[in-house]
Amino acid sequence: MRSTMMDAPLQISRILDHGSTVHGTAEVVTWTGAEPRRMTYAEVGRAAARLAHALRDECGVTGDERVATFMWNNAEHLVAYFAVPSMGAVLHTLNIRLFPDQVAYIANHAEDRVVLVDSTLIPLLAKVIGDMTTVRHVVVAGGGDPAPLVAAAGDRISVHHWDALLDGRPDTYDWREVDERDAAALCYTSGTTGNPKGVAYSHRSIYLHSLQVCTPEGFGLGPTDRTLAIVPMFHAMSWGLPYAALFSGASLIMPDRFLQAAPIAEMIIAEHPTLAGAVPTIWNDLLAYLDSHEVDTSSLAEVIVGGSACPPALMHAFEERHGIRVIHAWGMTETSPLGSVARPPAGASGEDAWRYRYTQGRVPAGVEARIVGPLAEPLPADGTSVGELEVRGPWVTGRYVGDETPDEEKFRDGWLRTGDVGTLSPDGYITLTDRAKDVIKSGGEWISSVELENALMAHPDVVEACVVGVPDERWGERPLATVVLREGAGVGAQELRDFLAASVARWQLPERWAVIDAVPKTSVGKFDKKVVRSRYAEGGLEVRELAAP
Amino acid sequence: MRSTMMDAPLQISRILDHGSTVHGTAEVVTWTGAEPRRMTYAEVGRAAARLAHALRDECGVTGDERVATFMWNNAEHLVAYFAVPSMGAVLHTLNIRLFPDQVAYIANHAEDRVVLVDSTLIPLLAKVIGDMTTVRHVVVAGGGDPAPLVAAAGDRISVHHWDALLDGRPDTYDWREVDERDAAALCYTSGTTGNPKGVAYSHRSIYLHSLQVCTPEGFGLGPTDRTLAIVPMFHAMSWGLPYAALFSGASLIMPDRFLQAAPIAEMIIAEHPTLAGAVPTIWNDLLAYLDSHEVDTSSLAEVIVGGSACPPALMHAFEERHGIRVIHAWGMTETSPLGSVARPPAGASGEDAWRYRYTQGRVPAGVEARIVGPLAEPLPADGTSVGELEVRGPWVTGRYVGDETPDEEKFRDGWLRTGDVGTLSPDGYITLTDRAKDVIKSGGEWISSVELENALMAHPDVVEACVVGVPDERWGERPLATVVLREGAGVGAQELRDFLAASVARWQLPERWAVIDAVPKTSVGKFDKKVVRSRYAEGGLEVRELAAP
Repeated sequence: MRSTMMDAPLQISRILDHGSTVHGTAEVVTWTGAEPRRMTYAEVGRAAARLAHALRDECGVTGDERVATFMWNNAEHLVAYFAVPSMGAVLHTLNIRLFPDQVAYIANHAEDRVVLVDSTLIPLLAKVIGDMTTVRHVVVAGGGDPAPLVAAAGDRISVHHWDALLDGRPDTYDWREVDERDAAALCYTSGTTGNPKGVAYSHRSIYLHSLQVCTPEGFGLGPTDRTLAIVPMFHAMSWGLPYAALFSGASLIMPDRFLQAAPIAEMIIAEHPTLAGAVPTIWNDLLAYLDSHEVDTSSLAEVIVGGSACPPALMHAFEERHGIRVIHAWGMTETSPLGSVARPPAGASGEDAWRYRYTQGRVPAGVEARIVGPLAEPLPADGTSVGELEVRGPWVTGRYVGDETPDEEKFRDGWLRTGDVGTLSPDGYITLTDRAKDVIKSGGEWISSVELENALMAHPDVVEACVVGVPDERWGERPLATVVLREGAGVGAQELRDFLAASVARWQLPERWAVIDAVPKTSVGKFDKKVVRSRYAEGGLEVRELAAP
Repeated sequence: MRSTMMDAPLQISRILDHGSTVHGTAEVVTWTGAEPRRMTYAEVGRAAARLAHALRDECGVTGDERVATFMWNNAEHLVAYFAVPSMGAVLHTLNIRLFPDQVAYIANHAEDRVVLVDSTLIPLLAKVIGDMTTVRHVVVAGGGDPAPLVAAAGDRISVHHWDALLDGRPDTYDWREVDERDAAALCYTSGTTGNPKGVAYSHRSIYLHSLQVCTPEGFGLGPTDRTLAIVPMFHAMSWGLPYAALFSGASLIMPDRFLQAAPIAEMIIAEHPTLAGAVPTIWNDLLAYLDSHEVDTSSLAEVIVGGSACPPALMHAFEERHGIRVIHAWGMTETSPLGSVARPPAGASGEDAWRYRYTQGRVPAGVEARIVGPLAEPLPADGTSVGELEVRGPWVTGRYVGDETPDEEKFRDGWLRTGDVGTLSPDGYITLTDRAKDVIKSGGEWISSVELENALMAHPDVVEACVVGVPDERWGERPLATVVLREGAGVGAQELRDFLAASVARWQLPERWAVIDAVPKTSVGKFDKKVVRSRYAEGGLEVRELAAP
């Protein structure tokens, strides 16, 4: 039986129309280092119309062509977030932090036709614009000197000024009715191996994700909120905050390029955010600043932390010393990105509530999660079975841009393989312990390298411990424990193995041990396990073998 | 460009799966007059599976057949809300308050195959079951004597006991994947003229509506909420509260047949609701009770009032005497029903906030509203232009069940004509003043009968005033003012007309006047304007004509 409901597509122009009328007096505040710039959502609506006219009439953007941004979090970026998808084109947020050759690769892969750039980022874009083979127009927002860009761009590319380009154009636009499953925005993952891969969000996925962000189980955004969106708009759509803001009427406070603790503290003092979102390193820096300066943070009830696991000590410090609740969230570019939010269940309090808050959080209604074991078998959601986390749902990607069929390394039976390993509780809480590539697959069971490392590092003579899986004829893989010892310590492998036996199952105990001078690290300071594995493979480690498992 | 997002349909079985696992410890509490019955959402999930098995295997329900409910708000009704759509069938909530012939008409029109009934409603159903020509099975929940029903049903219909029917069946079910635009639930409007008309909600519309209900701009439902759902589940899906509850993890408190002020006060004392929803008459009764009894209402932060306009005095009394915030909401069966919620904008306080709260409220992101004048011309959303309210959106119906094309009386260019007249402000607040059928269309302009009546009743000699439109050769329609005077009052029509002239535009002043003994009323106590109009047409009123407009 067919329903009688209207066939109203879920599209971004509806969010814009709603935000710029019903919430027309809400505002986006852009930090400048001096007097902040203010723009109401009514003005955002008019500017979006003008930008769309300019892109169509001056830059020749038609159909679903890609319009890229190379921008900080600011009002102009917000205008582009709405104008580009609403006119039927596709917004492509370029990550300014990638290596130049990656940026060019991504722009060419997406076939970007236009790049919108902040004038403060002209030097960075000038390095790569010559390699962007499909770009025909660059629009510069802000007052910096475009000369280096004009020089680098060559004759193929026209360089425009944002203000001059928009000036005098109509401030309404007859937004195109789209198929809600068509692409609205593109974001590439900065994968650690291989080329970056693109995810194309649909109007539908962004609409549904925005609604979920607004619910109390998400971030609970409403018109009385003022959201300090520190997480970059070129990083998984700033967690959906820009779209959720116009959906809900929450105002936005945008840091532009001022991402250090001191200006962020100033924003808190001057603009009274109620909510903020950023990765743990930002909060770590801010905590040190708050601990040593007098800052009124009373408006700020909650900060959302995502991108990587948040140390419990940081959560406690914010809450106990500054009255700010830190909420853990998990997600990835492939999940739009909201995958889970660590709010404790109703009735939990004290230590019980904290235990829930240390997890990656609980899935919202739009996300299904399951845990899959090393033999591809779904495991029970019992809070103890360890496996790879897989998710699916209307705002989860089912493939990468350009792939005809889903990449089997990343997708399985309609589920996204997250590459994260952990447990799922009966009430939907995800606890992640390892990256799948760091887990040791031993005879059809998984051994957590992180668990072994943590247990080892609890020994008073161990400074650092790095555990990797190495090939084993009988078991497939077995753990190799490499340890950095305290200067002058005389502890041996057998003693460390006995120490581990107190907290780890017997079959998980490593039989291969090596004492090393330092654990090799990646550029961002993480253990570089690839280097440890290859050193082992090349015989570059002095390994001591103990009893078999 | 196609998006890369998964194609995950929005379907009710997903809400059930989510609610019964992630929020498995939340509960539905059913009032019994004695010890309340408690059922967790995990149990609701298992019961829904058992009911689906029973409906399929014992009642032969296949495909999109209709399963009707004739029930109060209780746990079994909640189970049916999820089981029937999740198995791919269509839930049809029969309104127990309609006249018997209307109930039979609706059941036959919908071709209901099964009726689920509360045993306390057996006598009522027994009156009509014989006229329900398509029904083959009745399932009785609760312990009452089914004999009258068995006798009335005849051989054509099998009567089952709920508990016996569900007992021993599997507590999981492989829910069918549906097309999200297929019908999930049916509700008929109890129109004042003609036969009731059916609205078929889709899985998609219910899913989106539920999400919107959970946002702070809707009812803001989350896991710490306990919702007292007084508005009947046979009345516009209890405003979506049952679905939103399993979506958000909010517990439900269900009054069953105990709808008087005393038991509702007991529910508040015993079950600590945080939120409640009902029509104004219920709140009126409860207010009188609270004013004269000692009731701890401290848990109850907010009550949602809808169904008809809430008198400001009632809102103030609840807030000022009992600390309960009364929030006005507007909607209709045709809008799922959430059309608008009267939360003041950010920053409004005091009298300013109250002015917003007296309105019908602000449209959420999923609903578009416009005001259309008497010549079918869209009017500006300026807060002063008066016209008929039209709405559209993904949870608004575009036609009635059985109609191939939209009824032109109720739909126009893809919009639903609400039949309500009022204004729309630039920031999306709806203020309704009249029903379209009570507005007087005079020479291409509209005159509000309600405004004239209110102005007239301010005269000390006027007890009641009823204004209707009557045919006029020159203007199409003109107002006829009928007044009931205070005993012994000697005021004349000219004096009343002069009195009106102080507050109403000259062209709106009635020239036809009649003094009557009493205004004829409908069964629910409203002015019966049809009767006044027909008395005028039949010459049954002594009308005095004054100067032309």
